[in-house]
Amino acid sequence: MKFARIGARGAERPIAIDGDIHYALDSITDDLDGEFWSSGGPARVEKALAAGELPEVDIAGQRIGAPITRPSAVICIGMNYAAHAAESGSEPPKMPIMFLKTPNTVVGPNDAVAIPRGSSKTDWEVELGVVIGAHAEYLDSPADSKAHIAGFAVTNDLSEREFQLEISGGQWSKGKSCPGFCPTGPWLVTPDAIDYSNVRLRSWVNGNPRQDSTTSDLVFDVDYLVWYLSQFLALEPGDLICTGTPEGVALSGKFPYLTAGDTVTLEIDGLGRQTQEFTSSEAKA
Amino acid sequence: MKFARIGARGAERPIAIDGDIHYALDSITDDLDGEFWSSGGPARVEKALAAGELPEVDIAGQRIGAPITRPSAVICIGMNYAAHAAESGSEPPKMPIMFLKTPNTVVGPNDAVAIPRGSSKTDWEVELGVVIGAHAEYLDSPADSKAHIAGFAVTNDLSEREFQLEISGGQWSKGKSCPGFCPTGPWLVTPDAIDYSNVRLRSWVNGNPRQDSTTSDLVFDVDYLVWYLSQFLALEPGDLICTGTPEGVALSGKFPYLTAGDTVTLEIDGLGRQTQEFTSSEAKA
Repeated sequence: MKFARIGARGAERPIAIDGDIHYALDSITDDLDGEFWSSGGPARVEKALAAGELPEVDIAGQRIGAPITRPSAVICIGMNYAAHAAESGSEPPKMPIMFLKTPNTVVGPNDAVAIPRGSSKTDWEVELGVVIGAHAEYLDSPADSKAHIAGFAVTNDLSEREFQLEISGGQWSKGKSCPGFCPTGPWLVTPDAIDYSNVRLRSWVNGNPRQDSTTSDLVFDVDYLVWYLSQFLALEPGDLICTGTPEGVALSGKFPYLTAGDTVTLEIDGLGRQTQEFTSSEAKA
Repeated sequence: MKFARIGARGAERPIAIDGDIHYALDSITDDLDGEFWSSGGPARVEKALAAGELPEVDIAGQRIGAPITRPSAVICIGMNYAAHAAESGSEPPKMPIMFLKTPNTVVGPNDAVAIPRGSSKTDWEVELGVVIGAHAEYLDSPADSKAHIAGFAVTNDLSEREFQLEISGGQWSKGKSCPGFCPTGPWLVTPDAIDYSNVRLRSWVNGNPRQDSTTSDLVFDVDYLVWYLSQFLALEPGDLICTGTPEGVALSGKFPYLTAGDTVTLEIDGLGRQTQEFTSSEAKA
């Protein structure tokens, strides 16, 4: 099953997608929020769908929002592909490196993104996003993780490398929290509908290939990460975990950083495709 | 004017405090949230108070919650007192060091805190907390900051030093986001009611003095920080900024880390006093 949120920013309506048909979920829930995921929302949708109770909707021409409402936290994992660690000048980590983005960075998958004022090093990062489905605190083992996952989505962990690395005192969040820096979607796909241990993830800039890897190359896999993080913080329904990016970003020195007018496309097999146009923050103001 | 939230966790009711008298704000707002701060809520309370429209309430025996609902972000500043930077083995920073705690760490000022499982280095940090009152993005100068501040509160930026520094890959958030790690309150005090550029802040462990400093020793002051942060992210009404801690924490090596049964007391002149009992996380489960 796939879920999406469709409509103007701040007024998105919940949708389920079965095959190529879109169904309105207004009769089931107001939004795809933590309460929906943790209270058996997806099962209620399956039941209503089987009973023919959900009206079809036409979403043509409408904006696609992030498939989750604003999370309570956006938790990111750094250096979680060995080849990306190498291109960043680091060894693969011995334990997951955790940092945070502010939750207000989550935007729709195809929303334009303003390059931050003063930025000359805005960089893309395609990542498998994991959405938490149930409160997770001190899980016993990675085998418990799947039951705490609502689903998966494409995320772009956008990064300003000067802010992140050069004027940060070493703490990355300053270059990870600029407005619009976490495009998410188009869909949330439930765990039963994807082999998340081995999906291909790719990115392009202006149509030219940049990243091309698979989640089977993750240093720490999804189930390990959810269990591990739950030892250090309380994960809440609707929270988003960005699981790390593979090699092929501008930080490597192989590609130029983004400038106004560039477009970035990200795709993960089974999770769909997102494209952002980059604009100047002057134009946005 | 002072504001507080009183009642059981998750069911706090908004209160205004004038002198020693507490007033119920149910007729004005459901909660002390971003909407309240950014829509002129405090002015509505002043007017209703002057008109004698607010009922007095007796809060004796009731739990004090954090004086803000869950923020969209908790933004922390590191090494912002020169003497604390020195005791941590660092030079004072050349620019503000920003990191994040997960927003679900915010709890009431006197709520018990569970020492995280596996922790041997849980540490206190008294800090001046700044609550944002209006959306702040690319402010023109530090002179614009005060108009974007709702008020101030005592915060304890609790830290697990092994998680933060030894098994973190250098990213501090892993040791800053454990459940209950941001006691906040008892009150929010509006900017007109406190000289926030020079207030004394102190902490004690089991009654023994630990930290004793003043915000006049901040490397980067409050107005500078709000302006500076707004260049890198969008600050939202109700967001909490923890402005850094002065010297006198366990990380210095001068004092033992916290263990179950310890009590920590923090006080900032004009902002009140908070006390937490530390418990084992086993006892909590």
